[in-house]
This record gives sequence, C-alpha cells and structure tokens, in this order.
Amino acid sequence: MSYSNEIRPPSASALSFSTTTTLSAATTTSISSSTIASSRGQQAVALLPSYLADARAVETYHPVDAPNGALQLGVAESKLVEERLVSKINQLAQQHTFSADCIYYQPTAGRPSFRQAMAGYIQDMIQLPAACGSLNTEGLVVGAGCNAVLENLCFALAEPGDSVLIPTPYYAAFEFDLVARAGLQVQPVNTFEHSGADISTATVPVEAYYPTAAALDAAYDQAPAKAKILLLSHPHNPLGIAFPPHVVQECIDWCRAKGVHLISDEIYAGSVYRPDSANFVSALELASQPTNKGGLGLGPYVHWVYSLSKDFALSGLRVGVAYSENPDIRMPMQKLNDMCQISSQTQILVEGMMTAKEDDGKQWTSAFRAEHQARLRARGDRLQSLLHEFDIPHLPATCGLFCWMDLSQFLPLADNSNSNANAERERSLYLSLVNEYGLLFTPGLSMRNERPGFFRCVFSAAHDDEFDLALMRLRTFLTSQKS
Amino acid sequence: MSYSNEIRPPSASALSFSTTTTLSAATTTSISSSTIASSRGQQAVALLPSYLADARAVETYHPVDAPNGALQLGVAESKLVEERLVSKINQLAQQHTFSADCIYYQPTAGRPSFRQAMAGYIQDMIQLPAACGSLNTEGLVVGAGCNAVLENLCFALAEPGDSVLIPTPYYAAFEFDLVARAGLQVQPVNTFEHSGADISTATVPVEAYYPTAAALDAAYDQAPAKAKILLLSHPHNPLGIAFPPHVVQECIDWCRAKGVHLISDEIYAGSVYRPDSANFVSALELASQPTNKGGLGLGPYVHWVYSLSKDFALSGLRVGVAYSENPDIRMPMQKLNDMCQISSQTQILVEGMMTAKEDDGKQWTSAFRAEHQARLRARGDRLQSLLHEFDIPHLPATCGLFCWMDLSQFLPLADNSNSNANAERERSLYLSLVNEYGLLFTPGLSMRNERPGFFRCVFSAAHDDEFDLALMRLRTFLTSQKS
Repeated sequence: MSYSNEIRPPSASALSFSTTTTLSAATTTSISSSTIASSRGQQAVALLPSYLADARAVETYHPVDAPNGALQLGVAESKLVEERLVSKINQLAQQHTFSADCIYYQPTAGRPSFRQAMAGYIQDMIQLPAACGSLNTEGLVVGAGCNAVLENLCFALAEPGDSVLIPTPYYAAFEFDLVARAGLQVQPVNTFEHSGADISTATVPVEAYYPTAAALDAAYDQAPAKAKILLLSHPHNPLGIAFPPHVVQECIDWCRAKGVHLISDEIYAGSVYRPDSANFVSALELASQPTNKGGLGLGPYVHWVYSLSKDFALSGLRVGVAYSENPDIRMPMQKLNDMCQISSQTQILVEGMMTAKEDDGKQWTSAFRAEHQARLRARGDRLQSLLHEFDIPHLPATCGLFCWMDLSQFLPLADNSNSNANAERERSLYLSLVNEYGLLFTPGLSMRNERPGFFRCVFSAAHDDEFDLALMRLRTFLTSQKS
Repeated sequence: MSYSNEIRPPSASALSFSTTTTLSAATTTSISSSTIASSRGQQAVALLPSYLADARAVETYHPVDAPNGALQLGVAESKLVEERLVSKINQLAQQHTFSADCIYYQPTAGRPSFRQAMAGYIQDMIQLPAACGSLNTEGLVVGAGCNAVLENLCFALAEPGDSVLIPTPYYAAFEFDLVARAGLQVQPVNTFEHSGADISTATVPVEAYYPTAAALDAAYDQAPAKAKILLLSHPHNPLGIAFPPHVVQECIDWCRAKGVHLISDEIYAGSVYRPDSANFVSALELASQPTNKGGLGLGPYVHWVYSLSKDFALSGLRVGVAYSENPDIRMPMQKLNDMCQISSQTQILVEGMMTAKEDDGKQWTSAFRAEHQARLRARGDRLQSLLHEFDIPHLPATCGLFCWMDLSQFLPLADNSNSNANAERERSLYLSLVNEYGLLFTPGLSMRNERPGFFRCVFSAAHDDEFDLALMRLRTFLTSQKS
C-alpha cells in the first residue's frame, strides 16, 4: 500500500500551473546549467506532478504500523479482483510452458497469435457489431503499456512541437507521455463555455464536460502550434462517465473535416459497470465505415489505444495495444515498437488468458469482466450513497474506477490579492483531506479542471477493509464540514 | 529459421550510403507529402537497412521445404544453448509463482530485488575486482531491451541534434536506436588512418580498428554538431574481439578530458570465450576510482549498457540494463524508463535465474556461461580453420558471436566511372554469396566499414546441422573462387 515516488503517477501536473497553460518541454522550468546532463532529461522530470510530493510526505495507512496513515484513493488501479487474477495467472503459467521459439527475437509488433487473440478480445469487449467488420491485425501493435504505444502512435502522427488537444479535465500523466520524448505541446480543450450547459447552478452538469465542435474550434485556434491530434479518454478518466455516442461522433466528424487525428483512449472500455446509463459506444464502432478492403473502414484519421492495466488490474505486466488502419503509419508504428516490446513470456501468458474458456464454454475474460464490473458497481454505489446523504455534487459514475466529486463548497475563502488563489485554495483543501482526515484523492486542478475544488476518488484503489475505513473518514470529514 | 522483416535487424543502414555520411533523421531521404503521417515516422523507417530487402527476397533454408535456401548467418543471435535455457526457464516458472504485488504498478526502474540480483550478476560476469567497489543499484535501470535503455540514456545525456561518435565498423541498428526518436546524429569514427598500424598489407591488422585519441579528435572536429557521446561496443560487434585495456583507457581519458559521455555497450561481456587472448577488461573496472561515497567512482561521464539478448540468447524476453553514477541523470533515466518497463512476470523469472544455484552451490549463470563459451569457441574454431585453410584474412575471434572476414579479394573489379563503385561491388559479392551459395552474412559497408568486401559471419546463428551445411557451402564458394 506504500506509495513511493517510483510508482507511475496517476496524474502529472503541478497545482501551481494555471488551467490554461500550454505545456511543452521547451517551455517548462529552466534547468540549471551546472548539471552534467541534457536539459530535455531534466525537463522530462519537471513534467511529473508536484502535488505528489505532498502525497509522499505523508505517512500512508498500514493496519498495524500506521493505523492513522493516509488511505490511497488517488492511484488509478483496481484491487478488487486480485485473488481471481493471481490464481488464473499461476494456473496459466503451469499450462503454457515456454517453447524454444520464444527465447529469440519476436516480431516487433507482437507475436501474431497474440495479436489475433487480442483482436478477438477487443471485439468481444466493446461488443462490436458484425456489420462493422473485423479488426485487421496488421494494424494492431502490442507494446509495453498504453503510455508506450500511445507515445509511438504520436511519433508516427505528429512532428515535434505540434499540438495535441485534450478535453479537460484529463489524466495528467498524458503530459509526461506526450511531451517528454515525443515533444508535443498539450493544448487543453476547455468545454464549459462552449457546451451550452447551464453552469451557473450549484452542480456542474455532466453536459458541461462534453467536447463540442465549438470547444474544439476554440482550442484549435488557441493552440501555439498546429494541432495534429485530439486525444479522447473514453470512458473518461477522471470523470467516471462515457461521452454519449453523439458527442464522440461530433469529435470524429470534426477531426475528419479538419484533418486532425483522433486517438480514442479506451483503457476503461471493459469497466463499463452500468451499461444502460453509461451508453458507451466505442469510437471503433462509431467511426466504422466498412468497405470490401477489410478492417473497420476507420480511414486515416481515427486511432485507438488500450491496455490491461485498468480493466484487468494488470499494470505490472505492461501490456498495451494500439490500433490504426492508416497505411502510412503501419510501418513506423511496428518499427518504433522495437523500443518497447513485451516479453515473449508475458505475450504467451496473456494470449492464454484471452483464449481461456470457462467450464460452460464461455470466455474466461467475459466472466472475469462481469465479476469485476459487479464489484466496481458495489463500490461506486457505496461511495455515491454517502455523497447523496450529504448532498455533495458529483457526476453519476457509470464507468471506470472513479467518482468525480465537487468539494468546492469546502474550499477556504478566496484571497483576491493573490493571483494564484484558486490553486492555493485547492491545495489547502487537498492537504487538509490528507493530513487531517487521512484521505488521498487526486486534486482536480492537477488534471486541468476548469474550476477549483473538484477531486477524483479512485474507489477501487483500496482493499475492502481500507475502503470501509475510507468511507468512515469521508463521513467524518463531511460531518465536520457541514456542521 | 525464417527471416521476416519483422525481426529486429542485425544492422541498419543502406549499402548505398557512403562510409563517411553523417546520419540524422533530418538529413535522410525526403518523404512524400502525400502521406497522412508524420515525416519523422517515415524517416525512422528509412533508417532501417535496405540490404535486408535483398535478404528478404531470397528463400531461406528449410531441411525439407527449401533445402537449397539461404542459411541465416547474419542475425546476431546464439542458437547454441536453446535446450539449456528452455528447460531452466520452465523449471523456474514452476518454482516462482506470481504473487499479488506483481500484478500492480512496479517501480519504473525495475523491482528492487531484481536490480540487486542483476548488480550481483554483472559483478560476477565481468569479474570486477573487490578494490573497485560495488555497483550502486540506485544507478541501475532495467528496461525492455538494450536498445530501449540505451535510447533513454541518450535522451538523458544529449539534446536533439547532438552528435554521437561511434568507431567503425559498428552495429548499424545503432542508427535506428539513436536517431529515430532521440534525434541524435551519428558521426562514424574512422580509425585506420589514425591507428598507426600498417594498413598497406594484404591483411588489415586488428590494431587498425582501435579508436585512438587522434581518431576521436578527428571525428569530434568533423561532427556536424557538438559531439556529446562516444559509444563503444566492447567486446566488439562486428569485429569479434575486445579492445585491449589501454585502448579503452585512452577512450575514457579522452572523454573525461573533453567532457564527452562514454557509453560502453558490453552486451557481449559474458561471451568472452578466449579470455587469455581477448584480454577483455570492462570499462566499469577501468573507469573505477573508488571513493567513500559508494559505487565504483565512475564519475559523471562513464555509463554502461547490457542485456540478456546475446550472452543468454534471451532476446525474446527483452531484458536490458543501463548503469550510471551520474546523479543528474538518475531521475530522467528512471522516469523515462516508464515507457519501456519489463513485465513483472519476466523480472521475477530472470531474478530467479540470476540467483539460482547448481547442486555444487555455484551460480547457475556461471555454469551456463562456461558452457555457452565452450560452444562458441568450438564454432569459432571450426570456421577459422576453414578460413585458414584457404588463406582468407580475418580477425582472430575471441569474443561475441562473430568472425570478421575480409573477402575483398573476391570483389568484382572496380569500374572507375562509377562514383558509388565500392558499394555496388560489395552488394554484388553479397548477392552472389546469398543467391549462388546460400550464405547470408552481414555486409561490412552496411556497418560503415572503411573498406568494401568485409563480411560478418554470426557463427552461432544456426543450429548444428545448418552450421555444418554452412561450412560446406563456404568451402564450395572458396574453392570455386580460388580455382
């Protein structure tokens, strides 16, 4: 449960940045020239989230050693399916012994049989209608994590200095993933003003977060360099919802009209635990225009990434997937993947997992997914019941591992003499939650949220007893604040 | 035995390049603007070796399906220890079951216990004297292959556009690894003229290949941008020898005086199969200046990379290592490694391999290494006996998987009207070896050799029966040419 500075950060930006800052390696903190190192290496480190330094400074919970330590609800992981996964992995590892061909160099894009199994799994997971066609495995690359394949996709699509549009709030480690080596500039897409939603009410409605063509146009015009990519998180991290099909379709249409590449990051596509209200439809389905050429007919501007780190809670195995039907980037994607290949041993293991059947003949992954979703739903319900009880505004969570909570009513009063007031007010509330109530959430401004005082709760990040304790502590916090 | 275009290339440059060309992504072939993709992605692909297209066009050997197909002696792999590795891996996989902590995010630099085991293995392999101190595991990063950790080391040490010096001939995939994403420019270091060796004789003496301070000075002055890195292959690919300690020491001293970073790529350090004549001493030993601060006292300018792909023939597992004691690059190296982490499953497996003991209490890796070296020695001896028999100049191979053969006497006559004559003559001989004699070697100009007609034979790349056949075919070739 310890949260060292080694762990991949759940979000990667400093609270002290304003939400409209455009980020690039070239514009971040200037580096001391006394270091015997490159400035780009130093700048990459500077892209990592500074609020984590606060998190690291606190003692984290341990039932015996630190019963008053802070509970980790900020790392986007699921601890709900540990026993199922560990037993399955050990069973598969016994069944799938290592054969001689596995020790040698593998195809850089991944073992063909593994890519085939992955394509089948994806189609099943997103319930792709047969009319859309089938994934073309030639366009599918497996690499060491979603960040690795996403980075290579960006290398293949955009030049250094080009802008990438990302609707706010967003998973802030995107800034490290896209800026540190690929050299893109992140242009946040602020949605509130262009959404048409009434944001004057106490509760920001979910529609306010939808990226409309108007919001995309504004960000496109505002970008410091040509915008080449729009990156969507779908289902959404940190919002815990899916954009309705018409919103994603508007993004697809806008991208095709503008000649901008859409990357749909669907890393939570298997964690849609309230499918009816979520109304999640994959961009692969929405963008499909089947032809007799095979594949889904996505055209050159629609791309897709995924990994096993969230739906499968297997972040330690580093298994990411990128998919594209753009013939011009196939070779670059496959070749650049040479730098982030997955161990053949793990390719075999995961292929076994994706093709395993239950006793009733159904896919093991389907049964696993259903169980995980049921556990996520139970956790999400418990958290939201508490929030309802205290009238705390939050988005109705339907997907992913998160609930997006508006705690802005608990912010300290603004000090108008301070131009950076919102960041300081949010940090103050964040530190109070951590230090006084032992609750580690992800602060919203670190994810470029448009307003201060919003927090992401990863309700799957703790084991059962810790989650029970977290709810008790949150109740204590809310009671004290409301009284 | 099939050699698809998917396999990591053994060398990565086009025969049509001259040996003095300076390479960078910015200066390679211009790309059609009609592609819906980035130019840098297209240029990355253009860095891959064009001579492989010739290799791909031929049928490769199969005992039943293609008995006249070409034998693959060009991919730098060892097939000599397959049965030992596969049985050990399967044994270890049964012993080391997957525990719950392995499924989640790991420290980006690698699991601490694995890095500790790797440090111990390295010290044992290079026989590091106790007086040098011990590796500091904080400076050790494990990532998905030597190329991946080498690239990140370069990101941390140099800016885009900086030059990297590499003595010729060199493993030509360095051009892909260092140029494609890190954006360095490769400046070959030609050694013949500055070596002081007599190169007018029929046989180029081994001393002609030693990088002297004079050769480094010349390359440094010639580099198109500031040279920030000197990359040494030690033991040497493709030469199959180790530079004597005084040569490596001269490089270390030159680098420290110039403020240039030395990276010693010692990926073949465990394949020194004739230790007495090789006289291999690791740069970690030569650069060591122990202090009471811990580590080896390498200072900020000496760095080291390694992997399990060669000595262990485990290229499929993608296990690379970088080591540095420069405090300014520790964080960048660890954080950038987030993009190329090794599966926790494979970290556990390899940690088990590195700590396994034989029945006699000795390290399993030591016994394995001794057996691999004996087999390499036997292969190398058989090849060199044949070369001796026909008086074919070659370097006396002592390390690695290679013999560096001078077949220039068999080049077609020069056509002085053609400015690119040498490249065409070598390609002609290469194609003749492939098509008429069924022998796939790596052509020397693809590795930036200073003279045409040299070839690298990877004598470990074939199984026993194929190697027998390769020697028969080579005898046929030599007989026909000499008669």
